[in-house]
Amino acid sequence: MKFIKKLSVLLVLLLVVFVSCKAQTKSISKNDNTQKHPNLILTQKGVESIRAELGNVPIFDASLAKVKAEVDAEILNGIEVPIPKDFSGGYTHERHKKNFLIAQKAGVLYQILNDEKYAAYVKEMLFAYEKIYPTLPVHPQTRSYARGKLFWQCLNDSNWLVYVSQAYDCVYNYLSPKERKQLEKNLFIPFANFISEGNPQFFNRVHNHSTWGNVAVGMIALVMDNDELLDRALNGLKTDNIDPNAKDNDGGFIKKAGQKVGFLANLDEPFSPDGYYTEGPYYQRYAMYPFLVFAEALHNVKPEMKIFEYKDGVLLKAINTLLNLTDADGEFFPLNDGQKGMSYYSRELVSSVDIGYHYGGNQPELLAIAKDQGDVLLDDTGLSVAIGIRDGLAKPFVKKSLQLRDGADGTQGGVGILRVNGAKDEFTLVSKYSAQGLSHGHYDKLSFSYYEGGNEVLQDYGLARYVNIQQKGGGNYLRENTTWAKQSIAHNTVVQNETSHFDGDFETGSLNHSVNYLFDASNLDAQVVSAKESNAYPGTEMHRTQFLLKDKDFENPLLLDIVNVTSSNVNQYDLPFYYFGQIISSNFKYNTPKVLSPLGSKNGYQHLWNEGVGNSTSGNAKLSWLSNERFYTLTTVVNDKDDLIFARIGANDPDFNLRPEPAFIVRKKDIGNTQFVSVLESHGNYSPVTENAINAFSTIKKLEVVFSDENYIAISVETIDGNLKLIVVSLKDSAKDKKHSIIIKDKAVEWTGAYHFNNLK
Amino acid sequence: MKFIKKLSVLLVLLLVVFVSCKAQTKSISKNDNTQKHPNLILTQKGVESIRAELGNVPIFDASLAKVKAEVDAEILNGIEVPIPKDFSGGYTHERHKKNFLIAQKAGVLYQILNDEKYAAYVKEMLFAYEKIYPTLPVHPQTRSYARGKLFWQCLNDSNWLVYVSQAYDCVYNYLSPKERKQLEKNLFIPFANFISEGNPQFFNRVHNHSTWGNVAVGMIALVMDNDELLDRALNGLKTDNIDPNAKDNDGGFIKKAGQKVGFLANLDEPFSPDGYYTEGPYYQRYAMYPFLVFAEALHNVKPEMKIFEYKDGVLLKAINTLLNLTDADGEFFPLNDGQKGMSYYSRELVSSVDIGYHYGGNQPELLAIAKDQGDVLLDDTGLSVAIGIRDGLAKPFVKKSLQLRDGADGTQGGVGILRVNGAKDEFTLVSKYSAQGLSHGHYDKLSFSYYEGGNEVLQDYGLARYVNIQQKGGGNYLRENTTWAKQSIAHNTVVQNETSHFDGDFETGSLNHSVNYLFDASNLDAQVVSAKESNAYPGTEMHRTQFLLKDKDFENPLLLDIVNVTSSNVNQYDLPFYYFGQIISSNFKYNTPKVLSPLGSKNGYQHLWNEGVGNSTSGNAKLSWLSNERFYTLTTVVNDKDDLIFARIGANDPDFNLRPEPAFIVRKKDIGNTQFVSVLESHGNYSPVTENAINAFSTIKKLEVVFSDENYIAISVETIDGNLKLIVVSLKDSAKDKKHSIIIKDKAVEWTGAYHFNNLK
Repeated sequence: MKFIKKLSVLLVLLLVVFVSCKAQTKSISKNDNTQKHPNLILTQKGVESIRAELGNVPIFDASLAKVKAEVDAEILNGIEVPIPKDFSGGYTHERHKKNFLIAQKAGVLYQILNDEKYAAYVKEMLFAYEKIYPTLPVHPQTRSYARGKLFWQCLNDSNWLVYVSQAYDCVYNYLSPKERKQLEKNLFIPFANFISEGNPQFFNRVHNHSTWGNVAVGMIALVMDNDELLDRALNGLKTDNIDPNAKDNDGGFIKKAGQKVGFLANLDEPFSPDGYYTEGPYYQRYAMYPFLVFAEALHNVKPEMKIFEYKDGVLLKAINTLLNLTDADGEFFPLNDGQKGMSYYSRELVSSVDIGYHYGGNQPELLAIAKDQGDVLLDDTGLSVAIGIRDGLAKPFVKKSLQLRDGADGTQGGVGILRVNGAKDEFTLVSKYSAQGLSHGHYDKLSFSYYEGGNEVLQDYGLARYVNIQQKGGGNYLRENTTWAKQSIAHNTVVQNETSHFDGDFETGSLNHSVNYLFDASNLDAQVVSAKESNAYPGTEMHRTQFLLKDKDFENPLLLDIVNVTSSNVNQYDLPFYYFGQIISSNFKYNTPKVLSPLGSKNGYQHLWNEGVGNSTSGNAKLSWLSNERFYTLTTVVNDKDDLIFARIGANDPDFNLRPEPAFIVRKKDIGNTQFVSVLESHGNYSPVTENAINAFSTIKKLEVVFSDENYIAISVETIDGNLKLIVVSLKDSAKDKKHSIIIKDKAVEWTGAYHFNNLK
Repeated sequence: MKFIKKLSVLLVLLLVVFVSCKAQTKSISKNDNTQKHPNLILTQKGVESIRAELGNVPIFDASLAKVKAEVDAEILNGIEVPIPKDFSGGYTHERHKKNFLIAQKAGVLYQILNDEKYAAYVKEMLFAYEKIYPTLPVHPQTRSYARGKLFWQCLNDSNWLVYVSQAYDCVYNYLSPKERKQLEKNLFIPFANFISEGNPQFFNRVHNHSTWGNVAVGMIALVMDNDELLDRALNGLKTDNIDPNAKDNDGGFIKKAGQKVGFLANLDEPFSPDGYYTEGPYYQRYAMYPFLVFAEALHNVKPEMKIFEYKDGVLLKAINTLLNLTDADGEFFPLNDGQKGMSYYSRELVSSVDIGYHYGGNQPELLAIAKDQGDVLLDDTGLSVAIGIRDGLAKPFVKKSLQLRDGADGTQGGVGILRVNGAKDEFTLVSKYSAQGLSHGHYDKLSFSYYEGGNEVLQDYGLARYVNIQQKGGGNYLRENTTWAKQSIAHNTVVQNETSHFDGDFETGSLNHSVNYLFDASNLDAQVVSAKESNAYPGTEMHRTQFLLKDKDFENPLLLDIVNVTSSNVNQYDLPFYYFGQIISSNFKYNTPKVLSPLGSKNGYQHLWNEGVGNSTSGNAKLSWLSNERFYTLTTVVNDKDDLIFARIGANDPDFNLRPEPAFIVRKKDIGNTQFVSVLESHGNYSPVTENAINAFSTIKKLEVVFSDENYIAISVETIDGNLKLIVVSLKDSAKDKKHSIIIKDKAVEWTGAYHFNNLK
């Protein structure tokens, strides 16, 4: 079935390629039938429906009023097309960015309101660009591996063309054939050629950059009806002479030898069958706009391609996936390079949700998200959504526990998300055992983050960058992104001998991925995710198993975290927990230094201040803290030789680029095989208004590893009331129907399946 | 007029004293006319009105339902009266605290719902206490200067009696005379005696502790109709033998020789005529409940005292004062020892607002606060408020710029609050030039804090304590409150030679206060507050003048901060700015150390890490940061010898009791007279969702002191567009009608009044 679908798409594509072979890049659109515009995103039929509904669809009307106010203000301000000069955050960058956003909106307003002032504005802007483009040199800022002309990187030039193509489509019929010819000859075709033929290292890749480039060329090709450019967009440049060892600014490879490129390859490769995009949710969000807007355009202009069915409907699937990759506030998990705070309120997700609703079978849960967003696209899709909301069709979007496989065929590890309701908020565990994630990947195999509602309990640091804030390195990636944010020690995962996974080597990391061992969210009282990593440190295998457990003795679900490390060598292992807030108590003695020194000299350790070291003789180290008015206690099994380190980010940070946030690091030394076994409780709360401290103490008296061999590990949790819970995990066989039996403290324990959870008394 | 009022109150009091001379402490209530109960807070008439309105007043009904649910759950749980053992946060402390809160509520429910189960519950609890009290020793925790029996300090025992008196009043008629006699003999009278005669060092003071003690004794006296105890409550113990050098746990003096004590003295002395309570808003909030609830009881039982008119109606005035001492979120400015986050949503402010509305002339603005609180008292006052809200009488409570004088007669400095609307939120400057503030005072003469909406831009650290969190020093004041929070360097004020004001000596501090020089909020475009301090450092005068300026060239109001320091000696001066957030840029070079050392060894400096030091050769040091998604830039006039220090709280903090927040410190060395002149801009914003950085740069090109002598200082602010603003301040004469003239850069500048503000071009 799948094969046949793929085959039919391929046949269509071959046809497209065949037809386009005769096209010439320098020719303008071969088809002058202007009657059909707009047809890219807005359609003639859609415009009619919209006009008919104006005033009757509250959210649509509100979005329209907002856009109109914004564009009217810009029209009053007048058109500015400055000679490019600045990095992101600077005037010329922000101005050109605003121009393409406003041009697209003005085009839409022209169609919907049928008011020529908007068309005139777009026309004037287009000709202002047409005037400067032919003589524009490459952008003066030299940092990018692919410099644009309007912007410092081709990526932003491509953004421009994606939006301006839509504006052009909207005013196509307003312009005379002569005007169109002039624009296409002097602006659009050279523009498309520059970001493709002129920058193959940008265009011919599998990367979000290239997706933008491909889509930019594809969008203008569809408006101009230029098959050659469309083929280039879909399938890439035929030749590029890219050195297979070449890398981009982020350290990512440009292109593997023989790799397929173009829009379709960018759909094939980075998207898994579950709709997970290998770079992570932040970049998936960024890429979704071009992916979906071009898909919509292809659907409208080339319906025979059935683009929304491509790869088993991966594009539509990816929208739901992306929505599931958010916390309770709708903010994306900052896996890999992700800027915190980016959320499904972004314009890319407004368009994704609208397109997903319109072309994906009117899923009523998407209306709930759209309602939260309070904004819709001013096109057929936004109208559908606004009407759906108006008509009360919205249903809650309930995020569930789920596993998202990584890799084009879903075989390169993945991300496991467990969710469970607590006393007040939902708890979310995000477990990462994916592939490298291209150039935006971090060395964070088997890392995780943990949320209570919209608050991070244990954080993923995200990226070291202030996107678009010019003063901070031009708004681009800071050196600390490499020296800190990507390093293993910056994550809640095991670090061996103070070196990062794969020794921080991108090529090695790119060849490997973790492997899921177990994912089972079927029992809401004991959800589990488990994965193994055997390549990050040659000779060492790490196996992490995490449970979210609901138990009557605890106010909130417990996070049980078990890391089994087996190694042929003797090593030092560090496991950090990046918590937030104020330390309330510990059950062990520690010393705080009079003078703070960095915890190490490289691999990220140089960025951590050592704020204190302790040891525990009780078998357990307990640390409690208060964050967002709630108490948390981490209990972890230790021996008296383990170091318990209080650390804080911020050493060797001469420009104060890092956030000075704390970590608690458990260090096990001079050991080969070992386990890190920890339980994190969320308990009680504190209000500075009532000044009541409710349930401020841990419920755990003792956490113990009661059995451990190469096949099994068993943990007991004893509560302060003397109740005992036993958790056993089979480490080598995760089959659901496999029967197991072991002797723990002279008692036989028998069970079926990969794990066992029992209240003993 | 005032004098006559005072005189009449005194006459009434003399009468009370006269009558009570014949009373004997051990006698029970002389009046057995049970028909009049309840009459303390609830009244028989009030109960009738409440019953008549039940079901018709939404907020009252909601509050009643909430209280009923809470009490019903406690009744199900059963009564627990454990033998006292714990500090605050511990089980016995929290249980006894819950008991008195629930008992009071159960009493109210009995009256309103006429359901005997509530009376039975109160009765059972009272007798449970009656059973243990006679043999209870002093509380085993020894930390307090006045240990209680149920709690570790008499303060909490007094809280208990204030609430339980109300419960007793409500069930008075439910009990038989014999039962009442037993309770009064074994519980109430010994209890009242213990916290008064048994602890004169607690009872006979001017302090919030004593207010609670006085009111506790007074409330039970009113219920029992015991005039001797009532006199003791109003006027204190006749003899106490308190050593005039004795201090309490917070380092405050117990009592000055010959000082008046008792409830009325506690109204006379710490309240200024403006209703400002010298300990600061956090403790004013704490004291308001006993002040007002006893006033209400006196009003009901002894209407002839006209307590609400006492001291020109200061109690009712204080309610509005307290509401004005909050930020946009209703949180109190944490002046002196104040825990952040405490707000007008606290139960003390619910009662204050209700009582203020009912007895203070039905001010409709209070209804707006009550509406926000969403909760009312279950008595006559709460009913009035709920009816007012139901009937739509609420009007917005608009906080204005105002000066609150400190000191019993208003002559001991004060607090100046300037408020002005910005582009998005209101800006609030809180300038502190008050007296010491008793034992909860900080050494922070001429300090200030600054808010944008509900967010702190420049913070007052507040206290070093986690109130009621047992793990943190029993929930009590931590040693860092003394070593850090009270010290001058912990505040946004000038510190000379790394010593605190008054050398951190409480006695000296208590003898002195700053002096207001100028407060003028009449011109919304240029509001000003100015004060002088000449005792904090003998031989040195500090004069701080702060403007909030609205100017067309700036997106938001500017804070202009001018500190003139004159000294007969050569000193080092430090001026810290406790900002929040992430540093974005600076215009000067600085070095960050490889290893962090404390900035000093004592007076709070031992708690600051030195994270970097720079110098500026341009005449201005500029620092920009991003906090709460907004940009801020501080521009300050410096010379190349001034040190620009990046500091962070947290050194020498072995229990991690401090919050690791940053400061920027301007240090001027080896100098006698000097000025600190700074402008703080709030500009633009950054959204992680749109990733747009709007107006991310300072608008100031140059800040300059263009004139300075002993009489005048003139500042010019040049914008990046070349516009020039001139601000001149007369330093020695603040008269409104005084004409001034000086020559600045060969040009005569003439004006009338204390200051001059002009756009030059």
